[in-house]
Amino acid sequence: MAAGGELQLLGSWYSPYAIRAKVALGLKGLSYEYLEEDLFRKSDLLLNSNPVHKKVPVLVHAGRPVCESLVVLQYVDEAWAGTTGPPLLPADASDHATARFWAAFTDDKFFLAWRQLFRSTTDGQRAEAFGNVVPQVETLELAFMECSKGKAFFGGDAIGLADIALGSFLVWIQVVDEVSGTKLLDGARFPGLAAGAEHFMSVDAVKDAMPEFERLLEHYKGFLAKLASPAAPAGYS
Amino acid sequence: MAAGGELQLLGSWYSPYAIRAKVALGLKGLSYEYLEEDLFRKSDLLLNSNPVHKKVPVLVHAGRPVCESLVVLQYVDEAWAGTTGPPLLPADASDHATARFWAAFTDDKFFLAWRQLFRSTTDGQRAEAFGNVVPQVETLELAFMECSKGKAFFGGDAIGLADIALGSFLVWIQVVDEVSGTKLLDGARFPGLAAGAEHFMSVDAVKDAMPEFERLLEHYKGFLAKLASPAAPAGYS
Repeated sequence: MAAGGELQLLGSWYSPYAIRAKVALGLKGLSYEYLEEDLFRKSDLLLNSNPVHKKVPVLVHAGRPVCESLVVLQYVDEAWAGTTGPPLLPADASDHATARFWAAFTDDKFFLAWRQLFRSTTDGQRAEAFGNVVPQVETLELAFMECSKGKAFFGGDAIGLADIALGSFLVWIQVVDEVSGTKLLDGARFPGLAAGAEHFMSVDAVKDAMPEFERLLEHYKGFLAKLASPAAPAGYS
Repeated sequence: MAAGGELQLLGSWYSPYAIRAKVALGLKGLSYEYLEEDLFRKSDLLLNSNPVHKKVPVLVHAGRPVCESLVVLQYVDEAWAGTTGPPLLPADASDHATARFWAAFTDDKFFLAWRQLFRSTTDGQRAEAFGNVVPQVETLELAFMECSKGKAFFGGDAIGLADIALGSFLVWIQVVDEVSGTKLLDGARFPGLAAGAEHFMSVDAVKDAMPEFERLLEHYKGFLAKLASPAAPAGYS
């Protein structure tokens, strides 16, 4: 286990991408120094550690920064392989590829569609955005059913890369649903993902990493108020 | 080495993403059955093997499809780890993360900017697009200089994931330059990348995988002619 001084995480409490890194570090049982970033006034450490994207999370390990959440997850898995905590990727190369595929799908397809719902400020926008995100969730539901084989996680019994990639959005999905009057992970429509979400949220490392619903709801309402004002805020993408 | 029957690659001769898979299989010295796809009339095998994206490359190994080029590269590296050919990712987890970071940058930032140049049909569009892609190449140049430490490839002496991700575009870059009157990888401006490109193109597995310049040029001219016509073609993204 790394000492706090040699392992630092630059994050933001509401960033799903930073949540991924926290979950991974928690699953591995690694202790680290957590540095909360104000994404509207980024620190020099963040700007210098991730000059290309200037985004959280950044994991700084013995002075070397690792950027991009999916890269961080795989780094954590590989750098402490066999030393502490469970593996985040399955041993089999084919299952490995499947997990990477669905993690990429989450970022490339699901997020781009859901982001439209997240940024909606009118009922009309929300109805259209919800209609666009449902097909992505249908694809994820089929994938989850096929991959999990009736077990708790994408990879079966063990939580892994694809679960963390999608699961990092769960409280955000609930918060956006609350404001939008939608229910994206409806158990009747998406029984696999709804059950998977419950399993995911019951994991200690996840509980420790996730923002509180009420706090995130207030944050989101503040974001929407700014979005509806003439000068839309920076700091979100 | 896999027998032809148990390893199939679904590709398209002009797809940079399929070229990545060919380079990786070639570096590993794996024999496989290559199936050329007509991207305007996709085969049932492609549609059934990659129902989510319906894109090449798909590597079918013992009946199981692996989709998405960067996932395929890592799969090839892991499935035949230590059995044949050189590793495509360095042994060190930190260098691993660096290679994954720049491969993702190539797809997320470089390609999106360069695609604008690729799809330009007027001088004005080309000038604007070229101006937008140069900053991405400047970032890649700095990265290449820092990562390669004066050696041939991103990872130093050995060709790897980041080289294949970017290198797969090289003939396409030359072809678009030819039509646009641009010179993107100018040796005076980007000496690291220009030298790296020469090293990359001199590797046998790359030579075998790359399309011929003249053939690709004709193909691109045909694409641009269709693009300028009222009904723009499908099959490209």
